[in-house]
Amino acid sequence: SIVQVLENEFRKTTILQGKKVLITAGPTRENIDPVRYFTNPSTGRMGFALARQASLMGAEVTLITGPVDLETPGGVKRIDITTAEDMYQAVLKEYPQQDIVIKSAAVADYKPKVTYEQKMKKSSGEYAVEMERTKDILKELGRQKEHQYLIGFAAETNDLESYGRQKLEKKNLDAIVINNVAEEGSGFGHDTNASLMIFRTGKENTYPLMSKDDLARNILEESVHDLKGESS
Amino acid sequence: SIVQVLENEFRKTTILQGKKVLITAGPTRENIDPVRYFTNPSTGRMGFALARQASLMGAEVTLITGPVDLETPGGVKRIDITTAEDMYQAVLKEYPQQDIVIKSAAVADYKPKVTYEQKMKKSSGEYAVEMERTKDILKELGRQKEHQYLIGFAAETNDLESYGRQKLEKKNLDAIVINNVAEEGSGFGHDTNASLMIFRTGKENTYPLMSKDDLARNILEESVHDLKGESS
Repeated sequence: SIVQVLENEFRKTTILQGKKVLITAGPTRENIDPVRYFTNPSTGRMGFALARQASLMGAEVTLITGPVDLETPGGVKRIDITTAEDMYQAVLKEYPQQDIVIKSAAVADYKPKVTYEQKMKKSSGEYAVEMERTKDILKELGRQKEHQYLIGFAAETNDLESYGRQKLEKKNLDAIVINNVAEEGSGFGHDTNASLMIFRTGKENTYPLMSKDDLARNILEESVHDLKGESS
Repeated sequence: SIVQVLENEFRKTTILQGKKVLITAGPTRENIDPVRYFTNPSTGRMGFALARQASLMGAEVTLITGPVDLETPGGVKRIDITTAEDMYQAVLKEYPQQDIVIKSAAVADYKPKVTYEQKMKKSSGEYAVEMERTKDILKELGRQKEHQYLIGFAAETNDLESYGRQKLEKKNLDAIVINNVAEEGSGFGHDTNASLMIFRTGKENTYPLMSKDDLARNILEESVHDLKGESS
């Protein structure tokens, strides 16, 4: 709409000028056969909000996304993937040249051991799908980290702070955003999030329920300040 | 758009006036835990096209749909469901008072035996998801059929005719529409379908690649003629 165009114009800044920002978004699909798969309820809205706002802040944005029903924000380079393995390959390829990397995708942590090429025919009985772990993308990004500022996401119902700190340490992150999915209107499928952002430096920011675009701006602004060593 | 509004006005007919039409659409989701589920790539477009066109033809339309990202067509009563069991309950409740019933939903034929209330925590190992059959909705509709004209759908890559005839008999259908998913642009996620429609009477119609709205009109018109015992 015209209001949105004007709003976007008003919000344009240059604080991410010259920075390369990589954002992952959406779910992945792990197929059992051509017409059956495992997935999760991620709509990609948080990642697309991050991509849109980073672009408005002047960044060169790459958005790697699973199957979602969203339009690519203006000026953003979009790479579509389907499986966790696709996501791993795409992210690791883009990683070396990035300044800020935000992993907001809900990547499947398990996949079927076997994917059948043909549609399985129904049988009357029961059966079991053997599952195995996918590669841990965030952990690998933490391991290979050089100059990149690396931000992870988590969705929790309780103990946000202690779980967040653990994950930040374990994955060698610079910051983590923990969505409080116990709060009404927060998380999967909503346009709003209530979150806690924890930084490697020890700082914590609590964000009440706000639009994913507003949360995205907060996350990006904090990252830039933190990168520059400013207090905010 | 204005073009669509005019097109819809132009297409309004009364051939389904006074008829109650029930249409099912979209995929179902079968949860393993609150953030993991089995599903399929159905977008619901075929079912929504059927609902829209049936409404334009004057029918009183009920649309029972799984999770899809589509707007409800004007004048259509929409019921949202998530699982195959939800779909079964909703469809069987609406069934007795319907004249034409079209099952275009892609209902899961298997579901996890157990759905966990809490998000499963990752473990390093492998595991197996025990699956069991869901209820066969179409078969039950065929069994309980009285005055209803019952149409099923199938998606096949080969032997469309013989597979279609088998399913028509087994489920006690009046007609079946078999999408040729081997043809480029046909089936899941496309705006077009190439199909074969087989009738209990023995008649067969082959439809080349066309929009799902055009196919929907053909299916509905044929059903009305068939109901009235007209040849067409």
